[in-house]
Amino acid sequence: MQKAMGGGTVCRLEFFFFIGSTYSYLSVSRASELATRSGAELVWRPFSVRTLMREQNNVPFAGKPSKTRYMWRDLERRAMRFGVPFRGAPPYPIDADELANRVATLAADEGWCEQFTRAAYAAWFEAHRDPGQSQVLYEIVSALGRDPQACVARANEEPVRASYARATDRARELGIFGSPTFVAADGEIFWGDDRLEDAIDWTRCHATKG
Amino acid sequence: MQKAMGGGTVCRLEFFFFIGSTYSYLSVSRASELATRSGAELVWRPFSVRTLMREQNNVPFAGKPSKTRYMWRDLERRAMRFGVPFRGAPPYPIDADELANRVATLAADEGWCEQFTRAAYAAWFEAHRDPGQSQVLYEIVSALGRDPQACVARANEEPVRASYARATDRARELGIFGSPTFVAADGEIFWGDDRLEDAIDWTRCHATKG
Repeated sequence: MQKAMGGGTVCRLEFFFFIGSTYSYLSVSRASELATRSGAELVWRPFSVRTLMREQNNVPFAGKPSKTRYMWRDLERRAMRFGVPFRGAPPYPIDADELANRVATLAADEGWCEQFTRAAYAAWFEAHRDPGQSQVLYEIVSALGRDPQACVARANEEPVRASYARATDRARELGIFGSPTFVAADGEIFWGDDRLEDAIDWTRCHATKG
Repeated sequence: MQKAMGGGTVCRLEFFFFIGSTYSYLSVSRASELATRSGAELVWRPFSVRTLMREQNNVPFAGKPSKTRYMWRDLERRAMRFGVPFRGAPPYPIDADELANRVATLAADEGWCEQFTRAAYAAWFEAHRDPGQSQVLYEIVSALGRDPQACVARANEEPVRASYARATDRARELGIFGSPTFVAADGEIFWGDDRLEDAIDWTRCHATKG
């Protein structure tokens, strides 16, 4: 927590997400604006929810047609409510090798994670393309004015893999089991786009007055 | 849908629930008031979510300690937000024979379902007792001024079992997979206490003007 220019406090809210989580699309689209409005600093944290779900035997949709059908419909309704584009269910699952998530990790280390993640979700939900596929990923990274080959090479190397694994370890230690999850400065966790407002309220209520 | 006295419309919102669902506690505590305030008629529908979850291989908490821990904490926070009593995690799971749910079915057929369900949840969440156990069930039914032995006998007989099975069949046909689920008159479904407000808004927006 740090003092803001105006003498108030800036509270940190960590945003743990996985590119491939469907509901995270809503949070990727709206978390920044909500955080900014409330004076919270949003920290983007890509992590491998897939690893944690495997470990925890947490299978939300595969083999569950009623629940899956509902999820897309609910996502559509929530997107409408928030004015977020929704053009029908995109391909699912995506990012088989978690390459897009590792590029997001590199981007987080370098300060362009939000830009990249928004672009990856736009490719997925608006163009119905898998941002984990090389060609799509190259286009996304190029459009951000970066060298796609260099980025993908680095995303495949050990330092970025280790950084991604550390974020995943930290998520596990925090008790995270799904994406998106918001973590307040005091360690309180909020799972789901539908808890984003609660997380922001919590961050505001539990800020030490400057 | 029917005309209300004042010339407006009364829309029906069906409330599918299972006594034993943790988050349904919040809906049992607050759905009536929200529905009344919005002019919707709330219809209480006990059903065997356990049957559907078994069929759909939907295991939300068993063997998932992180998710379970989070669920209780989230429930506690939501209860605080709504002014609903919460005295720590009650016994879980409960109602092994679905007897409390079958008494709720009898009560729904006879018009005292809300009373019974509220009392069952109070026993569970406030006194930390399992409303599916005979002794607890007898006390709940007696306190409502009814004959517990007669009620339990009827809950064990074929007509009530058939009625419970029909509600479960209907839930399956509607695409329901969890409790609570709210069903609008046009068949739109909303899963979770955190979609109760959305369900009420939907019911209001989609009411045919009288």
